[in-house]
Amino acid sequence: MQALVKTKAGPGNVEICDFPEPQIKDDEVKIKVKACGICGTDMHILHGSIDSSPPVIMGHELAGEIVEVGSGVKDIKVGDRVTSETHAHLCNNCLYCRIGYPRYCVERKMVGRHGNGGFAEFFVTRGSKITILNDKVDFESGAITEPLFTVTHALIERANIQAGSVIGIVGPGPMGLLALQVAKAAGATVVMVGLSKDKDRLELSRELGADKILMADKDDVEVEINKLTSDYGLDYAVECSGSPKVIPHTLSLLKKMGKLLVIGLNGYRKVEISTDHIVFNGIEVIGTVGTTATAKEKALELLRTDKVDLKPLISDVLPLSKWKEGFDKMDNKEGLKIILKP
Amino acid sequence: MQALVKTKAGPGNVEICDFPEPQIKDDEVKIKVKACGICGTDMHILHGSIDSSPPVIMGHELAGEIVEVGSGVKDIKVGDRVTSETHAHLCNNCLYCRIGYPRYCVERKMVGRHGNGGFAEFFVTRGSKITILNDKVDFESGAITEPLFTVTHALIERANIQAGSVIGIVGPGPMGLLALQVAKAAGATVVMVGLSKDKDRLELSRELGADKILMADKDDVEVEINKLTSDYGLDYAVECSGSPKVIPHTLSLLKKMGKLLVIGLNGYRKVEISTDHIVFNGIEVIGTVGTTATAKEKALELLRTDKVDLKPLISDVLPLSKWKEGFDKMDNKEGLKIILKP
Amino acid sequence: MQALVKTKAGPGNVEICDFPEPQIKDDEVKIKVKACGICGTDMHILHGSIDSSPPVIMGHELAGEIVEVGSGVKDIKVGDRVTSETHAHLCNNCLYCRIGYPRYCVERKMVGRHGNGGFAEFFVTRGSKITILNDKVDFESGAITEPLFTVTHALIERANIQAGSVIGIVGPGPMGLLALQVAKAAGATVVMVGLSKDKDRLELSRELGADKILMADKDDVEVEINKLTSDYGLDYAVECSGSPKVIPHTLSLLKKMGKLLVIGLNGYRKVEISTDHIVFNGIEVIGTVGTTATAKEKALELLRTDKVDLKPLISDVLPLSKWKEGFDKMDNKEGLKIILKP
Amino acid sequence: MQALVKTKAGPGNVEICDFPEPQIKDDEVKIKVKACGICGTDMHILHGSIDSSPPVIMGHELAGEIVEVGSGVKDIKVGDRVTSETHAHLCNNCLYCRIGYPRYCVERKMVGRHGNGGFAEFFVTRGSKITILNDKVDFESGAITEPLFTVTHALIERANIQAGSVIGIVGPGPMGLLALQVAKAAGATVVMVGLSKDKDRLELSRELGADKILMADKDDVEVEINKLTSDYGLDYAVECSGSPKVIPHTLSLLKKMGKLLVIGLNGYRKVEISTDHIVFNGIEVIGTVGTTATAKEKALELLRTDKVDLKPLISDVLPLSKWKEGFDKMDNKEGLKIILKP
Repeated sequence: MQALVKTKAGPGNVEICDFPEPQIKDDEVKIKVKACGICGTDMHILHGSIDSSPPVIMGHELAGEIVEVGSGVKDIKVGDRVTSETHAHLCNNCLYCRIGYPRYCVERKMVGRHGNGGFAEFFVTRGSKITILNDKVDFESGAITEPLFTVTHALIERANIQAGSVIGIVGPGPMGLLALQVAKAAGATVVMVGLSKDKDRLELSRELGADKILMADKDDVEVEINKLTSDYGLDYAVECSGSPKVIPHTLSLLKKMGKLLVIGLNGYRKVEISTDHIVFNGIEVIGTVGTTATAKEKALELLRTDKVDLKPLISDVLPLSKWKEGFDKMDNKEGLKIILKP
Repeated sequence: MQALVKTKAGPGNVEICDFPEPQIKDDEVKIKVKACGICGTDMHILHGSIDSSPPVIMGHELAGEIVEVGSGVKDIKVGDRVTSETHAHLCNNCLYCRIGYPRYCVERKMVGRHGNGGFAEFFVTRGSKITILNDKVDFESGAITEPLFTVTHALIERANIQAGSVIGIVGPGPMGLLALQVAKAAGATVVMVGLSKDKDRLELSRELGADKILMADKDDVEVEINKLTSDYGLDYAVECSGSPKVIPHTLSLLKKMGKLLVIGLNGYRKVEISTDHIVFNGIEVIGTVGTTATAKEKALELLRTDKVDLKPLISDVLPLSKWKEGFDKMDNKEGLKIILKP
Repeated sequence: MQALVKTKAGPGNVEICDFPEPQIKDDEVKIKVKACGICGTDMHILHGSIDSSPPVIMGHELAGEIVEVGSGVKDIKVGDRVTSETHAHLCNNCLYCRIGYPRYCVERKMVGRHGNGGFAEFFVTRGSKITILNDKVDFESGAITEPLFTVTHALIERANIQAGSVIGIVGPGPMGLLALQVAKAAGATVVMVGLSKDKDRLELSRELGADKILMADKDDVEVEINKLTSDYGLDYAVECSGSPKVIPHTLSLLKKMGKLLVIGLNGYRKVEISTDHIVFNGIEVIGTVGTTATAKEKALELLRTDKVDLKPLISDVLPLSKWKEGFDKMDNKEGLKIILKP
Repeated sequence: MQALVKTKAGPGNVEICDFPEPQIKDDEVKIKVKACGICGTDMHILHGSIDSSPPVIMGHELAGEIVEVGSGVKDIKVGDRVTSETHAHLCNNCLYCRIGYPRYCVERKMVGRHGNGGFAEFFVTRGSKITILNDKVDFESGAITEPLFTVTHALIERANIQAGSVIGIVGPGPMGLLALQVAKAAGATVVMVGLSKDKDRLELSRELGADKILMADKDDVEVEINKLTSDYGLDYAVECSGSPKVIPHTLSLLKKMGKLLVIGLNGYRKVEISTDHIVFNGIEVIGTVGTTATAKEKALELLRTDKVDLKPLISDVLPLSKWKEGFDKMDNKEGLKIILKP
């Protein structure tokens, strides 16, 4: 089958190859991949800025149709429309595996990086890693349920956002726009903060329900937020910008006893904060990655009941053969979510 | 001024009287009452089935306009549109007063029952008990913010309902319909459960956003809920029926590790439950009454952003002189919230 | 090998039989059983008052030494001193399996009841069900870590008891005495409530650190608790008596916003409570069974650091051949935990 | 009366003066001060590095005996042994005042800084700010209940530490030693981390129950903690060192999903952290200051039941006239808590 493969370590070394079609074991299923999203991690693998295990088929945000089911797999049948977890390997033994937080598994290996992924005609994984999609979720949307699951876990289960709260979301990229939709679904008033260069993404924010749009290089963000919150500040802020310099400013927008949820990544760059500010204002900073079975269930229910819509986040759908065009767009920060179809 | 007064203990003894206009102290404000709701507690006072301190002006669900402000009161001015807490007396000293749960104050006395209330031209209370209404809330709606504050505290702060959950609300009366609106605002899928005689109220539920309407005497509630929840059951159930017999059945509709939130009152009648069922299913039962400053803030934000609308719950607006007509409707379970205008 | 077997359904039908020694699969381990506790469930199986799958080796509270390890099992080696989970079958697929609450698995089957248990020379189970005991835990104590894990989960993770709280524990049986030890370890002040016939168990409570001992048939429990709590009542109560009549009284001992944790079982008998009392006092009732990986870790740390000591709870250690003597004692409510050694 | 007064702004300007004896209003009480601790804030006021409102009597960690009670004050009588909150002014109106977190009041002014404090024969404050000490607490200990209340709130109510957890406390100063005692009372295993120059304080830690003592400049802290925690890392870390450079290292000692509780202050210096580390490890950072009525109640119960003992933390008790000696010791970081007796 045709697959997009990281052929060896270092920058580049990514190409479409003919790859043997994978075979399933008793506890596995085979998926005909219908859509697979390009993620920031894929760019790092392309550029060799994070480790991977070549030769390996890339892609971990995938959706497709079940075409074969191992004899030991329950509750999944041929024809099911599904997505998969992103774990190529879990120890199934550590504390995190046992309590349902596999993303924190001490031995975790990643699909599309350490194990073969979804930029290919077929993908094989354990039945236990499959989530069945409901009818409201088409394959393109299904390919980006994985980041939705992450954001749902973050906002609903980690920050525990409450209806009637005021939330600032900093950074209107795909994660920020997902956070916006989940926050709106949860009954929050949302202030979306970007820069004037994010004009189109901020405009999309407005269409997706943002109550207020602010450009940090044009508006006085603090003044506007104080107006909205009787001078108390935000109940929650969600950092999705990946910009280390923004974080101290975001902290200053919070209400006393407010929470900063950090989702955005910045390549392990240093962030300069004042812990005294955190102490005197009783602030909580919450880092989070990955998801849980309960968060998936909630996210799927939000999709089923039309409270979250992933389609507006998909800017491009390309055949797998045009992967270079998609990756280039990502490098140039054009578009939003870009989907490849094998 | 004209006021509706419980003149002495026992059944009845309620009439419109001429009552001296109240004067304020330094820490108090005077409100011209514009609307005051009739509540179940008022019926108990009328019928003498709970204690009160006659002669006392009745009514505790009130909204109006500030007409005079004591010299020691901050942040309130003449012309403000406001509602009031329902506490005629608080010790301001016990643990509950100190942690912001005045409803549980060990010395609490009640407005419209132990201290003069809002079925009158003017009402006087401490400035600290006032909540200023935003422009989205008219006086009739303002009069029923008090039950909204209670329900918001219950669902958002006690049961901590999460977006993407499935919630059953049992009993489509005013509290149930408020719970429905708050649950929908918070991103839940809501199943409203009533009886066939509640047809009109259930129809209103549908208009207010209920995802599924069930009549317990016609539909197989358990089967329908299992269909909706992949056989797991409800994440949360909210008891608003006040019917002791319903509660064991409601418990059986819950998912393992689900929560039953009890708001409905039943006159201290016995409820027969199985604690083994609660143990083996890891269930939590949460009782709650009253509200907090944070819940009020959230409820007002939900009103300001049009996520909750109190108007559909108001079935009747009558002049204070027609109080008897309103009380009779309550006795006959006609209408929903009935507002008297002094 | 010799094993204590439920040979067929109905009352009785329990005897020592010769049973084939179990063989392991790749993902399993074989344990030489050193100690196995008699539990209330065993009595129900004996008397036929709950279902089981005969012929089946009984016993689920077991500890022993690893004598053989399957090729696919990690982090367990021959010679390890271990205990096992009580699940003979889990679906590994439902929400509860995925989030680390296997006790709530929708397909769960039980060791010593639906699958062969620990009243035998050898016991075989999956490696994933094994907990390795630290050096502080001898085999007899190891056999009753399972109820300790349950109680630790209940008090620490479900009721979330806080240091400096006042807790009442009702029922000084084995579960109550475990709850006492965990509550004391967690910094609570503990009131142990029993009856005058529980004199010996209450005396043991005192030795294990109970701050106050009350006999409900002699002392005025409410008065004594009010004295200790400035009239507020208990922060938490833990129901371990299994007596339906006691529960309403226990509820009345709670502080407003207090929590009742229910551990004790009563054969699905009806419990008459007032939900109005729960509502007006903002009470939470929490049912709980089973445990989590984190609770096990905490319980083992409490054992390792001598904050909990299981030995005082073991009243009898008998050879497996004297099982009848042990079961009779249980029937007569003599002793506390009774251990059989195969 | 004699009092220690900040006479005007700037460095120094602190001296013993004759000051008029304060008179009470109806809602106030008068305390004969028996002991008042020197705190880091006092050093800042002395050196003029934070603002104050001179002329003002300094001192906010005080205990004494009630000698006069205003007519409007309940539940306090002459002869009561008490301590006081540190708020010279609260608005009693903002969200934080209403929910029982006065330390976060938007208008808060501080005793001994903006309002007269406890380095004087008498101190007057509102009855609502008084906490009555139980018989287990002598006046010297009573003077340092205020930091105990802060630490109890931090560990028990904000970080929510659980029995059987492993906690690292970084910085064995007075706050660190209080955190140690509360953590031990709550059933945690405690690793105390200091430097070799902290030898005496670390030795005291051992006497107060620390399970492991580490010197960051001599021991390999990470290796030792991994040994103790099966390589997972700490469940919680408590930052009490006030050293910005230590914090990134402390973060690296945490388990995935662990919590860093920040109590130590560092003069608003920049702290360089990696938010990616926080994200990928699911870490929470919690800042906290002040206390609640419930935390006070728990702290007093821990004192009453001998689970916390403040006496070992008091290194010096001096007459008020020798204030200079006490302040010099603080400047030189000699001793632990230094108490002045007016």
